[in-house]
Parts: sequence; structure tokens; C-alpha cells
Amino acid sequence: MYVIITYDVGEKRVGKVCRKLKEYLTWTQNSVFEGEISKTQLLKCLAELERIIISNEDSVYFYEVNNPRHIKKKVMGVEKSFEELFL
Amino acid sequence: MYVIITYDVGEKRVGKVCRKLKEYLTWTQNSVFEGEISKTQLLKCLAELERIIISNEDSVYFYEVNNPRHIKKKVMGVEKSFEELFL
Repeated sequence: MYVIITYDVGEKRVGKVCRKLKEYLTWTQNSVFEGEISKTQLLKCLAELERIIISNEDSVYFYEVNNPRHIKKKVMGVEKSFEELFL
Repeated sequence: MYVIITYDVGEKRVGKVCRKLKEYLTWTQNSVFEGEISKTQLLKCLAELERIIISNEDSVYFYEVNNPRHIKKKVMGVEKSFEELFL
């Protein structure tokens, strides 16, 4: 399946959440990751995120699309790469 | 169609982009909006955003799903409302 994950977490946990998601998905922008992932891997990723976030303060949203052909992605402006984040 | 829009724009333009998207879609989180929108309205929204952003500095990503049944949304942690942002 294809997933898009966005997060809004306390400053102290941003780096941890970002590194965890980078293990499974591709960084898109800001606090958005996306990519093709199996159900098993997704569940593993979510279980690991659950241990990082504080559930009454942070939010992680995920959008699942079974067939990636059902979703079209377009970019307006600059398409940034993960590396630029850390320059 | 159903769209998810995420943006990463210069600080000075965050408020303008956010207000513009709020005219058309529902705020989800941070810099993420989503909702049901017609093709015409989406094109209008994007044309208006294009006049706000600086195309070699800012990014706006949009994901289109023709049938909202093809996308499943889940939330881990807190589901925030738009109003909370401005408390």
C-alpha cells in the first residue's frame, strides 16, 4: 500500500519521529513522509512511533491508499530533497 | 475529488497560504489541509496560491484521490481542531 504520514509533535520529539519515519518511508516535506510500504512494515512503524510520541500532546496522521494508482501527487514551487533539510 | 495539501513556505507567507486554503478545505494539522473539492474549485485555489507563494523558495504538495473511498485516514495521538491553533 501507499501511505502519507504527517506529524505534529512536541519539539523534543521531532527529530526522533523524523528519524523513525525515515527508516520506512521517503521524506517529502516539512513533517510529511510518504511511500510504498507493506501492512506488516506499517504496523511495525506505527508501533515504534507510538513509543516515541506522547499520545495526549502529539498527533500523527496517516493516509492509506491501497493502490498507488488511485492517488496523484503534484508539486507547486520547489521540490525539496531530504538532504537540503540538513544543510 | 478528495485532496490533501501540505505546504512548506517562507514564514511571511504561512498565514496567507493558511487563510487561502481555509477558504476551500479543512485544516488537519500543522501545514496540512484536506477535503472534498471540485476540479474547478481546486484549480481556482491553486491559481490563487500561485500568486501568494514564491515559486523558487516555497513548496506546495497536493495529493488528489478521485474517490474518497480509496483513501483511509487514521490518527494516532491527539486530533487537533483548527481553533486550538489560535488559542
